[in-house]
Amino acid sequence: MPIKIEASFAFTLERPTDVLLQFEAAAIPEQAIIERHTRMSDAEHCAWVPAQDDIGERIWVRAQGDFEVEYTALVRPQRQLPDIAGLARMEPHHMPGEAVQYLFDSRYCQADKFQPFVNSEFGGTEGGARIAAIRDWIADHFSYEPGTSDSRTTALDSFVERRGICRDYAHVLVTLARASTIPARFVACYAPGVEPPDFHAIAEVFLDDPETPGGGMWQLVDATKMADPADTVKIGVGRDAADVSFLTSFGPNNFRRSSVNVTRTD
Amino acid sequence: MPIKIEASFAFTLERPTDVLLQFEAAAIPEQAIIERHTRMSDAEHCAWVPAQDDIGERIWVRAQGDFEVEYTALVRPQRQLPDIAGLARMEPHHMPGEAVQYLFDSRYCQADKFQPFVNSEFGGTEGGARIAAIRDWIADHFSYEPGTSDSRTTALDSFVERRGICRDYAHVLVTLARASTIPARFVACYAPGVEPPDFHAIAEVFLDDPETPGGGMWQLVDATKMADPADTVKIGVGRDAADVSFLTSFGPNNFRRSSVNVTRTD
Amino acid sequence: MPIKIEASFAFTLERPTDVLLQFEAAAIPEQAIIERHTRMSDAEHCAWVPAQDDIGERIWVRAQGDFEVEYTALVRPQRQLPDIAGLARMEPHHMPGEAVQYLFDSRYCQADKFQPFVNSEFGGTEGGARIAAIRDWIADHFSYEPGTSDSRTTALDSFVERRGICRDYAHVLVTLARASTIPARFVACYAPGVEPPDFHAIAEVFLDDPETPGGGMWQLVDATKMADPADTVKIGVGRDAADVSFLTSFGPNNFRRSSVNVTRTD
Amino acid sequence: MPIKIEASFAFTLERPTDVLLQFEAAAIPEQAIIERHTRMSDAEHCAWVPAQDDIGERIWVRAQGDFEVEYTALVRPQRQLPDIAGLARMEPHHMPGEAVQYLFDSRYCQADKFQPFVNSEFGGTEGGARIAAIRDWIADHFSYEPGTSDSRTTALDSFVERRGICRDYAHVLVTLARASTIPARFVACYAPGVEPPDFHAIAEVFLDDPETPGGGMWQLVDATKMADPADTVKIGVGRDAADVSFLTSFGPNNFRRSSVNVTRTD
Repeated sequence: MPIKIEASFAFTLERPTDVLLQFEAAAIPEQAIIERHTRMSDAEHCAWVPAQDDIGERIWVRAQGDFEVEYTALVRPQRQLPDIAGLARMEPHHMPGEAVQYLFDSRYCQADKFQPFVNSEFGGTEGGARIAAIRDWIADHFSYEPGTSDSRTTALDSFVERRGICRDYAHVLVTLARASTIPARFVACYAPGVEPPDFHAIAEVFLDDPETPGGGMWQLVDATKMADPADTVKIGVGRDAADVSFLTSFGPNNFRRSSVNVTRTD
Repeated sequence: MPIKIEASFAFTLERPTDVLLQFEAAAIPEQAIIERHTRMSDAEHCAWVPAQDDIGERIWVRAQGDFEVEYTALVRPQRQLPDIAGLARMEPHHMPGEAVQYLFDSRYCQADKFQPFVNSEFGGTEGGARIAAIRDWIADHFSYEPGTSDSRTTALDSFVERRGICRDYAHVLVTLARASTIPARFVACYAPGVEPPDFHAIAEVFLDDPETPGGGMWQLVDATKMADPADTVKIGVGRDAADVSFLTSFGPNNFRRSSVNVTRTD
Repeated sequence: MPIKIEASFAFTLERPTDVLLQFEAAAIPEQAIIERHTRMSDAEHCAWVPAQDDIGERIWVRAQGDFEVEYTALVRPQRQLPDIAGLARMEPHHMPGEAVQYLFDSRYCQADKFQPFVNSEFGGTEGGARIAAIRDWIADHFSYEPGTSDSRTTALDSFVERRGICRDYAHVLVTLARASTIPARFVACYAPGVEPPDFHAIAEVFLDDPETPGGGMWQLVDATKMADPADTVKIGVGRDAADVSFLTSFGPNNFRRSSVNVTRTD
Repeated sequence: MPIKIEASFAFTLERPTDVLLQFEAAAIPEQAIIERHTRMSDAEHCAWVPAQDDIGERIWVRAQGDFEVEYTALVRPQRQLPDIAGLARMEPHHMPGEAVQYLFDSRYCQADKFQPFVNSEFGGTEGGARIAAIRDWIADHFSYEPGTSDSRTTALDSFVERRGICRDYAHVLVTLARASTIPARFVACYAPGVEPPDFHAIAEVFLDDPETPGGGMWQLVDATKMADPADTVKIGVGRDAADVSFLTSFGPNNFRRSSVNVTRTD
C-alpha cells in the first residue's frame, strides 16, 4: 500500500551559509518511489551527494535569507518482512566488512558499557529473539515524553531517565543491540501513525536468515511501536542521530517551522 | 625511503571467541608494500574483510587458547606532501558525499561543543592554516604522559586535562578540525620515531589544493609531532579510536604482550 | 549604601507537594537587614530551617494549587572589601575543618581534572593574585549568552563551550580555584547591575590576610563582572548550583513567573 | 562485641607536600573507642581538624620523603539497629536543615536523573521499605568486580555497567535514595567480612521511627551485604566518595602500600 508523504520546513539564514539537507525518501530497491516532488527556495549553490552507505542523498545548499522546502511523495515499501524473533544471530566472523562499523560505539551509543546489562537481562536469547526482547523491554520501561530530551541526550542518559522521543528509543535499541554483538544503525524515516506527526527515527539491525545462512539482512525495528516496518519509508541511515538530520546548518540558522504528514493510501 | 615494520602481539582466549584484528599496512596507492609477512596461530576460522573507507583490511578470527601474531613488512610511503599551512579550505557545499560523515560528532569527538572555542582561538585562520594553528596549539598546551588516559577518555576530557597519548592528541585535533567545518578522521599507523615505540595514531584532514580547487585531498597531521607524514605507514582509518584498534575482542581476552619496532632503512 | 530588593515568583502545584524555597537575604554579620517583608500563599505546612553553613534559611512548604511569593527588603552590605589580588594563599595544612569540603569536587565542579590547566595557565600566581587572574581569564574568554546552558551544564561543559550565564561563570571560577587548592563555594545573591535582572550567582573563595596570617576569610568574586561585592546581598551558599536554588520542588511543579528588581538607594 | 582494627599505609612525597588523612574511627556516641593507637612518620606540620558533620577528624600533614601510617584500635559499635524495612519515610517538610544537603546531587551521585526509574521500579514502597528494596535490587543486579571501576566512575556509569566495588555500590544506593527524596550520605568505615580486606564504604539514609515520628535517624545500609551495621566502625561521612578518602594529596604522591585487617573479638 503506497504511503503519501507531505513535508515542509522553513528557516532564515542571516548571511550566506552552508546547510546540509536530507529529507527525501531514499531511492533504494526496498521502496518504490511512485511519485516525488521537491521544491526549494533559490540558492546560490545546490548539490546532491550520496548519503551514508549509499542510502538516499544529502543536499548541500548555500543560501541566504528565507529558505523554504516543500516535499511530497508517494512511495510503496516492498521490503521483506520476516518475523524478527525468528531470525538468527550472525556470527561475528561471518560479518561482511560494511557491517562491522555498526558494532562500534558512536557519539550517542556507548554500547561497550552495557555488556553486563545485556548479558544479565537478555542472557537466554540471541539473534532476532534478543532484538525482540530488547524492543519489548524498552517499550515496557520507557515513556514517550516530548520535551524531556534534547540534542545532547545520549543512550546512557535515556537508559537512566527511562523516557524520551523516537530518537532516544532508537539510540537505546541500537546500543543494546551492539552490546549484544549485533550490528545496529539509526534510520531516519517517514511512517504513518507517528504521534505527534513528525520526522521519525527507528533502528535497523543486521541478522541472518536461518534458511540461507551467511546472507545477512538489515531489519527495521521500532521500540516506540508506532511505526510498522511494512509502511516505513527510509530517508537515510547512520551510526546514530549525529549522522542523519533533515537539517544541519554550518552557521547561525533561525528555524521557523516544520510540518510532516504521512498517510496510508488505498 | 622504505620503512621497516616489525610487530607482534599475543593473547589467550579461554573459550572459542571472535576477535577482530587490524594491524597490516593498508595496500593503497599512497604507500608501496615492497614486502610483507603475516603469521598467525591456527584458528577455527579466519576471514579478511575490507576496512573502513576501503583503506586496509580487518581480519575476523575465531579461536581458542594462546594466539600469537607476527607481522613484518617493508613499505615505501609515496604520498604527496604539500605544506599543510598552504592548503585551502574546501567549502562545505563542494564536499563529496564520502567526506561528509567526517564532519559529524563521533564517540570520542564531540566537535559541536567546541565551535565558540575555535572561533575565538583560531578565528583569523582557515583551511590548512587553521589546521597548522590547531596542531601547534595542541603541541604547546599538552604534555605527552602515558598512563593518564584510558579507553574511556574523550576529546572533551583531554581538552580539559591537557595531557594524554597519541590517541588523545589525535582526538583533540579531529574534534577542533570538525568544529571548524573541516572533515577529519582518525588514522592508525606505523611511524619511526614514536617514543615509546608502539602502534601510533594521528589525524587526517580533508583540504583543498589551491591550484586545482574542488579536488580535495586527505592530509596527515600529527599533533604529537613525533611522526613525519613522509615516513608514516597507514593501517586504517575511522571516525575515532572506537573504529580502529589492532585488537577488538568479542568476549574475555587475556592480553599478554605486544612489541612494535619501526625503522627507516637505506 | 542600602540595597533595595523586590522579588516575586509564582507556581502551581497540581497536588499536595513539598517544595523548598530559599530567597531571603541571609541574616549574617556582613549585611544588615534594615527592613524585610515576606508574603507567601497559605500552605498546609511551612517551616524555616537553617541553610548550608548556617548562612541564611531554607523554607519547607507543603502546598497545593497556586502559590505566590513576594519579598521586599532593604539591606546594607557591610563586609570587608580588601583588594582580592593582594590576599595571600592559605596553606592547606592551616585550613579550618569547615573550609575543607570546599576543596573537593562537587556535582557541577570537577576540579580534579583541571590541575594541569591551572598550573600551565596560571602557574606564576598564587592566592588572591591567582583568583584575580582566573576571574579575568574567564571574563576575557567567555561570552554571556542566556539560553545556551541549562540545569545539566557542568563546569567542564562551560569550559569547553566558553559561554553561559552567571551560574556557569561561577561554576568555572569555583572549579579553577579548587584545582588551585583554594577553597571555593557557590553563592546565590541579589546584586544591582545584573542584566537581565534576575537572581544572581557568584563565587566565594577562602584566602588569607597577609597582615593576620592564619585567619582566613571568604571573599566574593564575580567572573561576569556585573556584581560589585560592595553591593551584593547574599541569600545562601553551597558546593555549587545543586545546593542553592530559590525553588526546589519534590514533585511536578508548573512554574509561572518570576521577577527580580535590585537597586541602590541613597 | 568489640571490633579490632589494624590498618597501615605508606607513600613517598618527593618534595614538601600537603596531604589530608582520614583513617581513624570516629569518636561518636554510637561507637565506643576502647583503645586506639596512631603512629605517623615525622612531619613538618600536623593538625587535626573536625571532619564533615563533625563525624571523625581529618589530619592535615605537610611532609616530605617516605611517610608511614600505622593505626590499631579496639572499638565497640553500640548503635541502634532497627529493622530498616520497618522505618518510616520522613516527609520533606519535616526534615531538619542539616539533612537537606543530602537530598541534593553531588559529584558522583546524579540523583535527579533517576526519578522516573525509582518511581517505576520501586513505586509501591516508601521509607525504609523503599531502601530495603533498593538495597536488594542492587545486590541482585550487580556483581562485585574489583578493577572494573576507578576514581572517575559515577553512579550513572555503575548503574549502566552493573558492577564495581563497595564505593560504586554505595554511590548507586545513595543516588536511588535521593531520587526517592530520602536523604543519603556516603560512609567510610571498617567492617569485618569485607573481601578482599580493605577500607570499606557503605551508605547511610535518614529515616523516621514510626513510634517517635519527627525524630529522624541515620541508618547504615550496605548494598554489597558484606558489612553488618552491628559490626561497622565509622571513619567519616560525606556527600559521596569525593568527600571521604583515607588519603588526599595536594601534589604528586607515590603510593606504596596499604593493608587493612578487621576482626571480631570475643
